[in-house]
Amino acid sequence: MAQKPSIPKGTRDFNAAEVAKRSYIMETIKEQFQIFGFQPIETPSFENSETLMGKYGDEGDRLIFKILNSGEYLKKISDEDYNAKSESTITPKISEKALRYDLTVPFARYVVQHQNEIEFPFKRYQIQPVWRADRPQKGRFREFYQCDADVVGSKSLFQEVEFVQLYDAVFSALKLEGVTIKINNRKILSGIAEVIGAQDKLIDFTVALDKLDKIGEEKVKEEMRGKGISEDGITKLQPLFTLKGDFGNQIESLKSILSTSEIGLKGIEELEFINTAISNLKLKTAQLQLDVTLARGLNYYTGAIFEVSAPEGVKMGSIGGGGRYDDLTGIFGLKDMSGVGISFGLDRIYLVLEELNLFPDTITDATKVLFINFGDKEAMYSLGAVTKLRAEGIKAELFPDAAISGKQKKKQMNYANRRNIPYVVLVGDQELNSEVFTFKNMTTGEQHEVSFEALLKLLK
Amino acid sequence: MAQKPSIPKGTRDFNAAEVAKRSYIMETIKEQFQIFGFQPIETPSFENSETLMGKYGDEGDRLIFKILNSGEYLKKISDEDYNAKSESTITPKISEKALRYDLTVPFARYVVQHQNEIEFPFKRYQIQPVWRADRPQKGRFREFYQCDADVVGSKSLFQEVEFVQLYDAVFSALKLEGVTIKINNRKILSGIAEVIGAQDKLIDFTVALDKLDKIGEEKVKEEMRGKGISEDGITKLQPLFTLKGDFGNQIESLKSILSTSEIGLKGIEELEFINTAISNLKLKTAQLQLDVTLARGLNYYTGAIFEVSAPEGVKMGSIGGGGRYDDLTGIFGLKDMSGVGISFGLDRIYLVLEELNLFPDTITDATKVLFINFGDKEAMYSLGAVTKLRAEGIKAELFPDAAISGKQKKKQMNYANRRNIPYVVLVGDQELNSEVFTFKNMTTGEQHEVSFEALLKLLK
Repeated sequence: MAQKPSIPKGTRDFNAAEVAKRSYIMETIKEQFQIFGFQPIETPSFENSETLMGKYGDEGDRLIFKILNSGEYLKKISDEDYNAKSESTITPKISEKALRYDLTVPFARYVVQHQNEIEFPFKRYQIQPVWRADRPQKGRFREFYQCDADVVGSKSLFQEVEFVQLYDAVFSALKLEGVTIKINNRKILSGIAEVIGAQDKLIDFTVALDKLDKIGEEKVKEEMRGKGISEDGITKLQPLFTLKGDFGNQIESLKSILSTSEIGLKGIEELEFINTAISNLKLKTAQLQLDVTLARGLNYYTGAIFEVSAPEGVKMGSIGGGGRYDDLTGIFGLKDMSGVGISFGLDRIYLVLEELNLFPDTITDATKVLFINFGDKEAMYSLGAVTKLRAEGIKAELFPDAAISGKQKKKQMNYANRRNIPYVVLVGDQELNSEVFTFKNMTTGEQHEVSFEALLKLLK
Repeated sequence: MAQKPSIPKGTRDFNAAEVAKRSYIMETIKEQFQIFGFQPIETPSFENSETLMGKYGDEGDRLIFKILNSGEYLKKISDEDYNAKSESTITPKISEKALRYDLTVPFARYVVQHQNEIEFPFKRYQIQPVWRADRPQKGRFREFYQCDADVVGSKSLFQEVEFVQLYDAVFSALKLEGVTIKINNRKILSGIAEVIGAQDKLIDFTVALDKLDKIGEEKVKEEMRGKGISEDGITKLQPLFTLKGDFGNQIESLKSILSTSEIGLKGIEELEFINTAISNLKLKTAQLQLDVTLARGLNYYTGAIFEVSAPEGVKMGSIGGGGRYDDLTGIFGLKDMSGVGISFGLDRIYLVLEELNLFPDTITDATKVLFINFGDKEAMYSLGAVTKLRAEGIKAELFPDAAISGKQKKKQMNYANRRNIPYVVLVGDQELNSEVFTFKNMTTGEQHEVSFEALLKLLK
């Protein structure tokens, strides 16, 4: 009968210490979201399949976890359809619901469904798990949390400015100093494609450019040639490969590269607005950097594109990303709603904080004092004290089983040690009779008799 | 293209006010869990099907949401199996994972899987959603949160005492005074069945007895007769129907009814221990009541059975329940692990607090001040102030779009009103030049010019 228990690949159990660390990150993010005026919403874990399917491309559709219909779900399938034995025919007939793949599409659905109850611009945040049937690998899970903040219903660039500030505020609050907030603009990428005569190859072109950091200039050019971008166009790109210096210098170079592209110049104007504002307002610990190679889910974004990288020296993919997407809600029938938002990568931030030893020691809410149990009478007396300590907010426990032998007493002391409980209280016959408590510091080993009032004071 | 958006039946969207109220309840419960020494764990939303199937009875198996395998999942089915077109054959072949149905079975799985990392007795709490393919109806959802605290690895009755205290502590912290914590013991029920010669009809007998409150004495007797319980047995039950008075009086009556049943007397002894302890320790706002008709998932519990009902006058099913179940982890191969735990019904507690108007006004973390936007230059100046306010932890926002016309200014004021933002700040040309802020109280309509320092002071 007994099964060797395990969990599905790509999923995780979290123990108390891990839950505490994850909560610390999420609570820090949540606090800044609220300070910036974002309001929380929550959506169901599963949506109707038609809400999700077709929104993430073919690959996305495949990675969506589908939920099997209940009851006699095969009855709905005609014999003809059934006999074809093909997933593409069968799946939509036996599954009408699917697990959330991200928080953006459910947010768009929420906005359209509740549009009459919402005040626009609507600033919402959402911290919930999502599920993807991806091949599990190091750092990639099938269930993970997303932490998103978005504004819908305003085209103002002040939003982009505030999102840069929000990234800075969160990472500063997490004491993760020196992150780089990279910014680009879809319009810049469109402008470059226009200038080199490759408008129809925008995606091929940006996919290649996006690899500059990893594979270098020559290989990027090779890939572009392979995709049919002309030698003339690649020559025009040359200044891009040597784009150097601070934000302002890069902008000046871009102005000359993009001088003939209306959309490119519009992109430059937007970047300049954001950079000027941030220069005036100043960031606490992060830096803003222009990165014209940044593309991230290009089909999605129409304006600003953000990505955050960990401080230098920490090997880690992006720890956050986002951007502006016009017509966020069009797929659900609400036109002309511009949205802009950012996301925080909880699992990666966790790994970075762990690596840099940045989790505060205080976040594990461990028990402060354990009362050793020497028998029912003593335990009853102890529980009275435990009850009073708890009423004062002190995390206190009574060991539930009585220690009759010395060995059992030792077991209880070991229990306190292994759980890192810093203090124990011993109540035997003698303490009971004189209404005192023997208080022991588990670190120093010191112990002495105290009254309840003194005990409370020591633990507060 | 446009779809009319909706969510699956039995699921819910939560807006900001609802999220805040739900968080308030969950945070209050969590705080008391920690004060009582419980540590958090989290388990994946889906488990391997074999972990869940067969643990909740046939009805439970049917209500478990199954997840469809990815990829070419039909290939695994032999033609013979496929052609039978039967759900009982097909389902296990196309679905290997299922959504969590409760928190108890995943907890048992967790304990066995991680037994070498755990210090026993292990006090864990878990607050996560569960899913059931139940027929949705008023107050019954397909996705809902459970809030559980359990101890595994100790048979001590001090645990039961502490769980009564924990219920009292949580409901007192929620200001929900006057709840009744009903307690019974499986051994009492076994004892009664023994005494009336209906050991083999224990479930029929308790199901009938459980209805005493709803259908009355005569109908209960009728049902028992229908189930084949002898007239002699029913006569012996008579004192049970008139069991009256406080805990102590009821115990005395039970002692005479159960005088010949060893197991029954053991149950009485356990109840007496708990009642004596609670009488000594005293509860803050709840009361403990013996209820011999209480059964709740009888097959599960082996000792204490708990159920909490809302204060008198509030029509609501139980708002909490639990009990002791020996051999919690036996199904996963770890024998002789006694567990005891309780659960809080989040959705029902929410309805009760709403009905009694017990949610504090302060829990909706709304924005405190909105800066009206009169144009880029003014907005830039405003954002400087907003940035400084946020650094002080004040929830502040800048309206993103510029109000050019009076109508647009009015729109921004209305936005503040509708979002219940209590203060607005107006910065026009004049304020900009003299470096001041016009501060307006949206409730009284009063407004006056202040310096930034004064503004900060007013908002703090």
